[in-house]
Amino acid sequence: MSTSRNIDSKSASRVQKQRKQVPTAEELLQGIIRGDKTALARALTLVESTKKQHQKKANYILDNSLNSGKESIRIGITGVPGVGKSTFIETFGKLLTSLGKKVAVLTIDPTSSLSKGSILGDKTRMEELVRDPNAFIRPSPSGTSLGGVARKTRESIFLCEAAGYNCILVETVGVGQSETAVHSMVDFFLLLKLAGAGDELQGIKRGIMEMADGIAINKADGENLKRAKRAQTEFNRALHLFPPKPSGWIPKVLTCSSLENTGIQEIWEMIDSFFTLVREDGFLEKTRQEQNKKWLLNTLEDRLLTDFYENPGIKKELDRLLIEVAENKISPFKAADQLLERYQKKV
Amino acid sequence: MSTSRNIDSKSASRVQKQRKQVPTAEELLQGIIRGDKTALARALTLVESTKKQHQKKANYILDNSLNSGKESIRIGITGVPGVGKSTFIETFGKLLTSLGKKVAVLTIDPTSSLSKGSILGDKTRMEELVRDPNAFIRPSPSGTSLGGVARKTRESIFLCEAAGYNCILVETVGVGQSETAVHSMVDFFLLLKLAGAGDELQGIKRGIMEMADGIAINKADGENLKRAKRAQTEFNRALHLFPPKPSGWIPKVLTCSSLENTGIQEIWEMIDSFFTLVREDGFLEKTRQEQNKKWLLNTLEDRLLTDFYENPGIKKELDRLLIEVAENKISPFKAADQLLERYQKKV
Repeated sequence: MSTSRNIDSKSASRVQKQRKQVPTAEELLQGIIRGDKTALARALTLVESTKKQHQKKANYILDNSLNSGKESIRIGITGVPGVGKSTFIETFGKLLTSLGKKVAVLTIDPTSSLSKGSILGDKTRMEELVRDPNAFIRPSPSGTSLGGVARKTRESIFLCEAAGYNCILVETVGVGQSETAVHSMVDFFLLLKLAGAGDELQGIKRGIMEMADGIAINKADGENLKRAKRAQTEFNRALHLFPPKPSGWIPKVLTCSSLENTGIQEIWEMIDSFFTLVREDGFLEKTRQEQNKKWLLNTLEDRLLTDFYENPGIKKELDRLLIEVAENKISPFKAADQLLERYQKKV
Repeated sequence: MSTSRNIDSKSASRVQKQRKQVPTAEELLQGIIRGDKTALARALTLVESTKKQHQKKANYILDNSLNSGKESIRIGITGVPGVGKSTFIETFGKLLTSLGKKVAVLTIDPTSSLSKGSILGDKTRMEELVRDPNAFIRPSPSGTSLGGVARKTRESIFLCEAAGYNCILVETVGVGQSETAVHSMVDFFLLLKLAGAGDELQGIKRGIMEMADGIAINKADGENLKRAKRAQTEFNRALHLFPPKPSGWIPKVLTCSSLENTGIQEIWEMIDSFFTLVREDGFLEKTRQEQNKKWLLNTLEDRLLTDFYENPGIKKELDRLLIEVAENKISPFKAADQLLERYQKKV
């Protein structure tokens, strides 16, 4: 009897402990609504997880978060490694919080799984911004496909906004296709460049420059200053070769030094005047409407495919058919047909 | 009574006529197995159609075609407009048919809807090859997305092989992202270039050069010959900078003139020696196995999404929710959830 009581109290305390450790989806949702950073971080971990039960919780939180996104601004920041993105974001982010904004920094780095280190792996990055109560920094999860990264970023932006962050900075490395994904999620796309290196040397593709709403020539300090000014003129000329933006905005080229904290204020003023323009001419509202529609379709397709592949009967049958298809025992089309028929009967 | 009989005989003849005009899926399938070009062309039209009843027929034909793809070779041919792709393919294709091969030429041109003209719009292209009984030429359908183009090309390759074509040439314009799609479907990727134009001027991206198993400097005739030889050396050097191919194949650079019919035989010999290599080292078999698996997954996802979007109840609900999402009355995630729930109940 005493043993049994002992077990009971043990398991009761275990359950209690577990309850405390693993908040429910509803608890996380309430935490996010209160603006609790820990709840937000936990919810983002669920969003990033590939486990079915985690995704279910994440979906509950997403589905029930109220966020119109109307009040926030979303800025994409790109540039090749070495251009000084993190130092720039630290300085820029501190300026934003000093202006009373709540800043969330998300990073997209689909290459991190290859290079075996996240771009935020260096723990000393953004030291001061990390400690800022009005800033929230979230490193990129590694080891995910671009499609996965896009979904996670979409959902992360949404949750950060639901938690009250009204300035979302999405950092991405200017080398892959992630820019296009980020570009489709943000309002303003800022490209960081260095002076004194040819365009090719910096590895920036024409397409990325075309997406930019603003270019900041970083590290414009000391001996670099002259070269930076010259680069500014050159980039300004290059930008004029691109067709005009549907927003009506004319992209600008500025110089800055994150180290000396010069030019950062001007970059904010440029971005601020962009938002004044696109709020006035209705472009921002239209963009958000289109983005919302796109997010609905993307989310639909993600969840539909997940539901399909997670179906236990389908999983087994798919494994079998993949082998048969590889061995030419059945055509890929016939196999697809069989799987769909099975799915439609089961669902 | 006589009127009624009259109507009956009329409608009977109409039905008969219609039957003759619109062959059944089974009739087309049998035609393809016999190698009938008209049946193949009709089936490809069904594959390209966005109409549900056409897709249903196309799927029946695809699902029941027997094709291991083992006996065929698939060659992707790319190059910027003006490099002479069609003249090259005509000369190259005639060489192949003279060697007893059956050649199918497919083109992918996702840009054609923008430039308002297919790259095969010029009817005089490939005049001689068109008349060759052992060649089958299929222009690209216009006005489709890249995703759509990829699906259609996949299905078209499959049907051409089922109809007995053992040399599939897939032509694509070297300007967009279609190269990556084509590259994943073919065994050998040939890049056509011109001498005397800088790489940038030719608008070929580094990534496209990296995909090439062979480069042919075209129009190497007359005054161009010297420059072509110089370009050959340069490209050879450039190719050595890329990592080795998983196939074990070392990409080669050749010169040719489609007009003077020089160098074409050498290009075929290069491609032939590639196939000898990859058949011997097992790379071709492994590639086809992987391709088959990928085609199964791609087909699955295409058909699953089509089934979802074609569901009449979903269609109506989706239209309503797209508006609500744009107006911020519901979040994209919540809306997606509602649609999936409805779909899963209905299917």
